[in-house]
Amino acid sequence: MTVGGPRFISFEGIDGSGKTTQVRALAARLRATGAEVVETREPGGAEGAEMIRRLLVEGDPSRWSPETEILLFTAARRDHLERTIAPALARGAVVLTDRFANSTRVYQGVGRADLRASVDALHSLAIGVEPDLTLVLDIDPRVGLARGLARGGTEDRFEQFGADFQIRLRAGFLALAREFPRRVRVVDASGEAETVAAAIAAEIGL
Amino acid sequence: MTVGGPRFISFEGIDGSGKTTQVRALAARLRATGAEVVETREPGGAEGAEMIRRLLVEGDPSRWSPETEILLFTAARRDHLERTIAPALARGAVVLTDRFANSTRVYQGVGRADLRASVDALHSLAIGVEPDLTLVLDIDPRVGLARGLARGGTEDRFEQFGADFQIRLRAGFLALAREFPRRVRVVDASGEAETVAAAIAAEIGL
Repeated sequence: MTVGGPRFISFEGIDGSGKTTQVRALAARLRATGAEVVETREPGGAEGAEMIRRLLVEGDPSRWSPETEILLFTAARRDHLERTIAPALARGAVVLTDRFANSTRVYQGVGRADLRASVDALHSLAIGVEPDLTLVLDIDPRVGLARGLARGGTEDRFEQFGADFQIRLRAGFLALAREFPRRVRVVDASGEAETVAAAIAAEIGL
Repeated sequence: MTVGGPRFISFEGIDGSGKTTQVRALAARLRATGAEVVETREPGGAEGAEMIRRLLVEGDPSRWSPETEILLFTAARRDHLERTIAPALARGAVVLTDRFANSTRVYQGVGRADLRASVDALHSLAIGVEPDLTLVLDIDPRVGLARGLARGGTEDRFEQFGADFQIRLRAGFLALAREFPRRVRVVDASGEAETVAAAIAAEIGL
């Protein structure tokens, strides 16, 4: 990658938009240039944060109120930042994370504007950093939801909120890109994985 | 209890100061007057909050940074407040809790003043309420630590910080009582359990 290019990159988007696949593809391209790359994800990405993840993504959709959920996401993010992201950036690695703070802004903010304000206030207080670049993988929610549910497993608490929720999430991510046009970019994720990977590589100048 | 007396009461103090015993004793006295009493504790006191508790009180002392720890305590407190405390107060019950926000203020604040500020900022943002009355059970830290360690079990993460930490905690609780003289009261907890219970009953006008 070009010297001075983005070193802390988050991938965002609705469930099933292909974030995991694209993190892996970009990591491979970056490693081919000789870069050290750390692939990580949220919630989780560090030992403690992964334990908090289990409380968040499993179980009944109503097990936590939105307010408690924001606190748990922020706790997991703080641990992830301290134990994984900050040390990696400090030693010169590139960090690719499958979700970061923008997911919390959008997931919580789509329902209630006051929750978006709480997310931002907590972020200022406890996190304070943003990725150099956020890539929003944009896809039709009906396609994304079908992919997400096809994956199976027990981590389906957010998918259980249903198709209408995914439609509002997509709108939320697109609104975020308009709000922060310099650091949040939308990538069309409806094509084949290789096509999307090429678009992402072009976006970061690879 | 007298009409209009405190209905939300927290018990605070260092480990081994007798909080659990005194919550039980006061609950019995209040029930004898016909009151509904909810006995609860922090971290925990609700189903989700108890799961967060396990992340906080077990394991290696360095497993969480102070910043992450404050977020987890606040998440557990929010759940506790929503699911246990607020509903109980709404139906007219008296709530006795073994620890509440003042524990977080003191445990985090003794080491670093900036953390006390973070606790307060998070409290304003996510919790917003204080007990009507906080009783600080005051005891010599050497006595308290011996009692706490004698209890055994796996919930010893804070005791592992050592005797010097307990001495600073005691000073922190006494300072808090000076900071909020109307709602935080110090009770001498060095005597027999019955003596301490009588002092507490007198404090709330029973």
